[in-house]
Amino acid sequence: MSKALDFLTEALRRLPGVGPKSAQRMAFHLLQYDREGAAELSRALYQAVDTVHHCAKCNTFSDTTVCDLCMDESRDTALLCVVETPADQLMIEQTLTYKGLYFVLMGRLSPLDGIGPKDLHLDKLVTRATDGAVQEVVLATNFTNEGEATAHYISEMLKARGMKVSRLARGVPVGGELEYVDAGTIARAMLDRRST
Amino acid sequence: MSKALDFLTEALRRLPGVGPKSAQRMAFHLLQYDREGAAELSRALYQAVDTVHHCAKCNTFSDTTVCDLCMDESRDTALLCVVETPADQLMIEQTLTYKGLYFVLMGRLSPLDGIGPKDLHLDKLVTRATDGAVQEVVLATNFTNEGEATAHYISEMLKARGMKVSRLARGVPVGGELEYVDAGTIARAMLDRRST
Repeated sequence: MSKALDFLTEALRRLPGVGPKSAQRMAFHLLQYDREGAAELSRALYQAVDTVHHCAKCNTFSDTTVCDLCMDESRDTALLCVVETPADQLMIEQTLTYKGLYFVLMGRLSPLDGIGPKDLHLDKLVTRATDGAVQEVVLATNFTNEGEATAHYISEMLKARGMKVSRLARGVPVGGELEYVDAGTIARAMLDRRST
Repeated sequence: MSKALDFLTEALRRLPGVGPKSAQRMAFHLLQYDREGAAELSRALYQAVDTVHHCAKCNTFSDTTVCDLCMDESRDTALLCVVETPADQLMIEQTLTYKGLYFVLMGRLSPLDGIGPKDLHLDKLVTRATDGAVQEVVLATNFTNEGEATAHYISEMLKARGMKVSRLARGVPVGGELEYVDAGTIARAMLDRRST
């Protein structure tokens, strides 16, 4: 049919979770109903590739050398929270309970995918955590197997350097009914029970 | 965080079937692991918006005024097959059973979505079907309610102008076991039974 259309369909398949049928549907949709959206997406991609880099301090995506949050002088420089992704960071920010700074791993240790400590640039994290200002590192990686392994690895690494390291609390979710919470979570909540 | 990243996430939501979470995942993926893919997609979108138009004869997407298939002199000009989308046309081409030409509606009649005969440019189809060369119009719209309604509408419209109109056969799919085929299909296959 159209070479430009074939090229677009191929390019859309580079998006995660988009197979040949979805890519074709997206291409048809954009060309038939939303050419303006296609042009806007083209510009947004170009601009993002051109301007988005990693913050020199916290490693998250940023348009500037150091991101706004790291530049914010009202944040508590004694606390450093380690998260896997910018999305995780955003979730913690939304809780309004944390006023320290962040380090974004941009991934997790995952030997099956070939992602080891070097690929995560954990040396950058060590440099950041041992800058003298940081008193405590809060590990907020996911509570999946890979996230737990990542937290464990970082914890050992920083404790060997004399840092104080903590981990988000595990337990029954807020609003959780014991009948419907999995046994592993309840077991953990029982072990980590607090005096009231 | 990053303005360029927010702009990209917003733009990705213009794709059909992509919500806020998917858009964020796609943006992170492209910036973290596939900047080359992002640049390529940007170029592909730009090029497609710029060069893809509708074929003057069959209405499908084409980089040229008249598409390659309509220009192909080995095709049978007496047959005109009406399909809903370029994807449907591709499927029919893959069967290698049809040597005529096409008309691509780029949609279907759908009163609930506000798509009436005018929005489908059915006047273009009438002009094309009554060009003197076409002897038979084969309706190959989908066998959904909307596709059937579209076929019925076009059929009435063309028969009123003295055209011969046919419809793809309905029946039990190849490899179909009666036990697992729905009753409606079997009923149809019984009514449309052929002498052998």
